[in-house]
Amino acid sequence: MDNRRALCFENNRLIILDQTRLPDKVSYNNLKNYQEVISAIKQLKIRGAPLIGVAAAYCIALESQYRKSNLRSHLRKVARAIKLARPTAVNLAWAVNRMLSIIDNNKLPESSLSMSLLREASRIEKEEQDNSYRISCLGAKLIKHNSCIMTICNTGWLAAPNMGTALGIVYAAWKQGKKIKVCVLETRPLLQGARLTAYELAQAKIPYTLITDNMMGTVMSKTDAVLVGADRIAKNGDTANKIGTLTLAITAKYYNVPFYVAAPSSSFDLSCKTGKDIIIEQRNPKEVLYIRKQLIAPQKSAVYNPSFDITPNKLITAIITEKVVLKPPFIKSISKL
Amino acid sequence: MDNRRALCFENNRLIILDQTRLPDKVSYNNLKNYQEVISAIKQLKIRGAPLIGVAAAYCIALESQYRKSNLRSHLRKVARAIKLARPTAVNLAWAVNRMLSIIDNNKLPESSLSMSLLREASRIEKEEQDNSYRISCLGAKLIKHNSCIMTICNTGWLAAPNMGTALGIVYAAWKQGKKIKVCVLETRPLLQGARLTAYELAQAKIPYTLITDNMMGTVMSKTDAVLVGADRIAKNGDTANKIGTLTLAITAKYYNVPFYVAAPSSSFDLSCKTGKDIIIEQRNPKEVLYIRKQLIAPQKSAVYNPSFDITPNKLITAIITEKVVLKPPFIKSISKL
Repeated sequence: MDNRRALCFENNRLIILDQTRLPDKVSYNNLKNYQEVISAIKQLKIRGAPLIGVAAAYCIALESQYRKSNLRSHLRKVARAIKLARPTAVNLAWAVNRMLSIIDNNKLPESSLSMSLLREASRIEKEEQDNSYRISCLGAKLIKHNSCIMTICNTGWLAAPNMGTALGIVYAAWKQGKKIKVCVLETRPLLQGARLTAYELAQAKIPYTLITDNMMGTVMSKTDAVLVGADRIAKNGDTANKIGTLTLAITAKYYNVPFYVAAPSSSFDLSCKTGKDIIIEQRNPKEVLYIRKQLIAPQKSAVYNPSFDITPNKLITAIITEKVVLKPPFIKSISKL
Repeated sequence: MDNRRALCFENNRLIILDQTRLPDKVSYNNLKNYQEVISAIKQLKIRGAPLIGVAAAYCIALESQYRKSNLRSHLRKVARAIKLARPTAVNLAWAVNRMLSIIDNNKLPESSLSMSLLREASRIEKEEQDNSYRISCLGAKLIKHNSCIMTICNTGWLAAPNMGTALGIVYAAWKQGKKIKVCVLETRPLLQGARLTAYELAQAKIPYTLITDNMMGTVMSKTDAVLVGADRIAKNGDTANKIGTLTLAITAKYYNVPFYVAAPSSSFDLSCKTGKDIIIEQRNPKEVLYIRKQLIAPQKSAVYNPSFDITPNKLITAIITEKVVLKPPFIKSISKL
């Protein structure tokens, strides 16, 4: 598999880079059925809203390769199961729904379903690759020479096909010759900033400084822009993203630092009127209580572990999509998307 | 040593509870000379601004017990060395200066210096115990029944003699029968919230929920008050405290949640006009790169690791001292302290 690729579909196997092992170890998993794909998504071996959308599409294509009897009903069951793997990132449901529209097309004989599904999954991947490229180029225009960019979690090629979303913008601006320093928030509990974004930037030789999440206040006064991804964007622009994004947006607002969300159209969910309609995934308390297998607090501590939070639209300067840079009022600009 | 005491002076030894081992292990160290005390302070085996002030005082008393020749000049050397152990918490310099005023009192014969120094150290400890009690009682009046209190780092009996400062207020309010829930920020990089505050609250059977620092935004809307300690308070009320406090204050302001600083007079430094005059200790990057010996990012990552940040006075609702609850404008109220 290509050096900077988080998944690929080859020889009827979904091959993924196991992101839970990074940065210590670069190891790949061959996923052979939908149970393995769902497990990999739940364990965050594959993660990033656009990437898990693509993984879900390939998962359905994968399942269609072997089964001969009751294929359609089997695939519908698989589709339901994948949608439930992670509830917040809407890209998952979006990609599955695209696959379902093929499954539900009764004009298509079962014998050619498998080929059509693989073609659709591959099309979804290609589209998301193009979207990543367009988001990166559009966003890079907003980044000034000699900028310090703060970012949370991971939004590079480990999160979205091609070059990523928010971190893709950093790559594009860097490629244009703009001098950039990235301030990487480690992103507790699962440290995707420290483990994944720092890993990507080190590979790309883009200078970065790692900080703990609570340092955002003291570093924000020297920051020129904040770039984040999105797991689901409501009709009014309220944005669900990795836990900590809300605190980051509040801090950016206090210092009047522009706060940009970067996401493809597949991250918008117009059925959610506002952020209140977005379901927030609660994850295992052990993710907070243990850091890489080390207990860090009294074992019986009560723990709150939402995987995401909602940033209200009023804290967002612009949303960078593959088509256009959306400006407030978002209720208006999103409706024209 | 008493169950809820972080240090004591007995048989010419300074005995400390090693806070770096908590919550896994309750173990005590006998410190026999000033080098050992300084090392324990630097390693954060003893920590908390008021507590390290007391430790520094006892350290000088300890050193005066054995040395017979050139005692005064030796003690002045020791005093200089201790002051440098940690630069931000002013209580250290404050306590050492009190000890120095005895050392510098030439009317006192060298033969009785040792006894006078021990008496002064013991007086400092007693005063800080009383201060802790008074801060706790004064502060508890501000805490409503059925409150959710958010706090950072550790400010209980592990940080200040007796019951602590900010966490002392929680203890006092709880004792008054007020129903309280504490939201404990884990406080990266060294996890004093997760390791120490959660440990204290579990022992005291006060309900708490542990969260990662970046969750403060999403939890603040359900929070009634924020309580923090201080390492140094400038003449205008700007407050140096554990890294993350500034982000916490910004977040509290956004939600209009009262933000209280609790600290004894020994934490004020009127020679600092504003927070800009306060030196911020930079600590080893490994504290961020490793969590309890586990590497969490590419080894060669650049890291920023300030131990403290400065919260501007405009973000502080009140400063609770042992004498009075100071209200803005702090430049005025502090001048009357």
